This record gives sequence, structure tokens and C-alpha cells, in this order.
Amino acid sequence: MDLQLSSSLLENAVTELSRLPGVGRKTALRLALHLLRQDETTSLKLGESIIRLRKEIKYCTVCHNISETDVCQICASPARDSKVVCVVENINDVMIFERTGQFRGLYHVLNGLISPMDGIGPDQLEIASLVARIRENDIEEVILALSATMEGDTTNYYIYRLLSQTGVKITQLARGVAIGNEIEYTDEVTLGRSLVNRTLFADSFKR
Amino acid sequence: MDLQLSSSLLENAVTELSRLPGVGRKTALRLALHLLRQDETTSLKLGESIIRLRKEIKYCTVCHNISETDVCQICASPARDSKVVCVVENINDVMIFERTGQFRGLYHVLNGLISPMDGIGPDQLEIASLVARIRENDIEEVILALSATMEGDTTNYYIYRLLSQTGVKITQLARGVAIGNEIEYTDEVTLGRSLVNRTLFADSFKR
Repeated sequence: MDLQLSSSLLENAVTELSRLPGVGRKTALRLALHLLRQDETTSLKLGESIIRLRKEIKYCTVCHNISETDVCQICASPARDSKVVCVVENINDVMIFERTGQFRGLYHVLNGLISPMDGIGPDQLEIASLVARIRENDIEEVILALSATMEGDTTNYYIYRLLSQTGVKITQLARGVAIGNEIEYTDEVTLGRSLVNRTLFADSFKR
Repeated sequence: MDLQLSSSLLENAVTELSRLPGVGRKTALRLALHLLRQDETTSLKLGESIIRLRKEIKYCTVCHNISETDVCQICASPARDSKVVCVVENINDVMIFERTGQFRGLYHVLNGLISPMDGIGPDQLEIASLVARIRENDIEEVILALSATMEGDTTNYYIYRLLSQTGVKITQLARGVAIGNEIEYTDEVTLGRSLVNRTLFADSFKR
């Protein structure tokens, strides 16, 4: 369907909105018309918040998570265990792990995964800074908390090889049957892994 | 789910994005992270296009469609039949009717429908300006092209009552079985209307 718009301002807004993930030209037009219909301050606030987000955002110089300050709240907190570093793909994953309430250590945000198909190599990621961070600080354990995908596994292995010389303990997230999932609908590879890595039943009461 | 965001800039952008129709907090966060990840100019262009859209947009003083000039391209075109005015709910409907390629007259955008439930009365719509336009210009026919909903019908009737004194011919869109639809799945009210308003079969060849 060809959407001929009578105004270049509308045309422009629709084009830019349709660059958002999951937003086609038709949805973009619906959004733009909504922005025209609602009260002006709300629409202007959206535009300004996007510009400020992009212009003023800072990243923690230690873990590369977003931050309001040079060093983020997590890295600066004395309540966190600075001897454990959890390696994650992006800032969203930091929020996800924080929400579990199960982790008191620090993070390291890679800003992506190694993916030759997408032309993303280790140099575009915060891997060198991770290695430097491990070498220069008193860190006992690195938890590889990347997705259980080919890209995640590749990145895990790459980091593992680099860090194995440093003597730091390297762990990864447990792989197994997701809580709430039925055996019948769990894939064979996961089931196989969950058998090999089975844990003592009594351990499940400990926490 | 509670999304605690570590940055007030991110928090702000997510709040504003989640005001968009169909965008929840989780989608808003996904969009914000996308805006952070993609190249800076694209994100800034989106913000600026939204602000410009809202600040600089103009409306045609005749038909209230969006326009770059005081009088829109449609109203100003000598190729259009200025004796026929099609009354539509919003600027999106203008685009929809333009796309049919079946209409060569002018439009009048109401900017909504009468809806007591939503607190929208005739005074908030471009109804008075429609009546004035009909009175002051040489217009022969007004086509009521509003949705076949309760609000559309209410608005149709309200306009009909106001205009019936002016002597202008008042028509409305044909109601009937949508093209491509099966009888089996067409509702009874529509079928009843399509029977009462049946047309000569031979007329369907004329166009």
C-alpha cells in the first residue's frame, strides 16, 4: 500500500517512526496521527526525551552499563561483592538480573555478542576492557551469563580462552529445564544437559 | 512487572514512549534501548521530526486537513469539484478516500465524532465551520462519510438536522455487504440494510 502523505512534516515523522523495530509505515502513520491529536506538551516531551536520552546518556567507565555518573550505582555500591563479575550482553540484561534479586556482585556489559554473520567481531565488544578489568582488580569469579544461542556460546568460549590464563574462576549459567516447563515440551538437547548436570535434590532446600 | 531503571534519562524516555497507543512499558524499554544502540543521528532525527511535526504542522483553514499552506492542495486544486464536500472524521480518512481514487470533490475534517461517553460534544468538532462553509459557498452535495458506528450515526444525524434547512443535498456512504465478504459471515443488520437498499444489477456494469 502506498501512503501518499500531503505534508512533508508528517511524511518525515512517519519515515523516522517507521525505523523503530516492529513499526511499519502503517503503524508509524497511526502513531504520528496520535501525536498530532493529543495535547501538544505530551508530544513535545516525547521528542525531547528521545533527544536527551541519546545526547546526555552516560556509560559507566567500569562496567559499561548506563549511568548518570562516571561510575554507576552498582559499581560504586559498597554493599556489592566486587570479587564477582557477571558478564552480560547488554544493559537490558543487567536490569533482568537485578530483578531476580539473586545477584550481589558486579556486572560487565559486552554491548553485543560475537556474530560473524552480522559482522560483529570481538573488537566491537567490551571484551578487551573485561580482560583488563580482571587483570587489574582482585576478582575471584567471572560468571558468563550470555544467551544459550550459537552467538552466546561463541562469545562464552572466546572470553573463556582469553581469561583462562588469568587464573580467575570462570562459571556459566546453569542450563536445564526452565522452571514451570513440562518435560514433554522441553527440547532434547536441554534435557540431555539437564541430566548430565543433575544436582543433589537435597540442595534445592538449602536456599 | 516493575521496571526499575538506573538512569532518569532512560526512565523519562520509557515513560514518554509508553504513552504511545499500543506501547506498554516493556515495549517502550525495548524501543529506548534500540534508540541507544542505533547510530546517534537516526535517533536524534526521530526526536526532532516529532517536535517539528507538532510545532510546525498547519491545518487547512477551509477543510481542516493537515496542510503546508493556509489552504491545502486539495481545496486549492482547480481540478477538484468544489460543489461536493465529503465529511470525514479525521485526516487519516482523507488519505483513505484519496487512495480509492473515486472522489474528485473536497473534504471537511470534523476532527472526531460526537461521543457523549468520551465527553466529546459538537462544539469540540468542526461542525459549526461546516455549516458556515455550506451556507457561504455554492455547494450542491454533502456526503456524510463517517464510520457505521453509534458515534458515526449520531454525528451524521446531528449534521443532517443542522444542514437540512440549507437545502443542500445530503447523502451518506452506501451500507451493505463488504466486497470480498461472504453472506454467511455478514451480520444480520448489514444484510437487512443491503436488501432494503438493493441496487439494479445492470448498474454495476456502468462504471
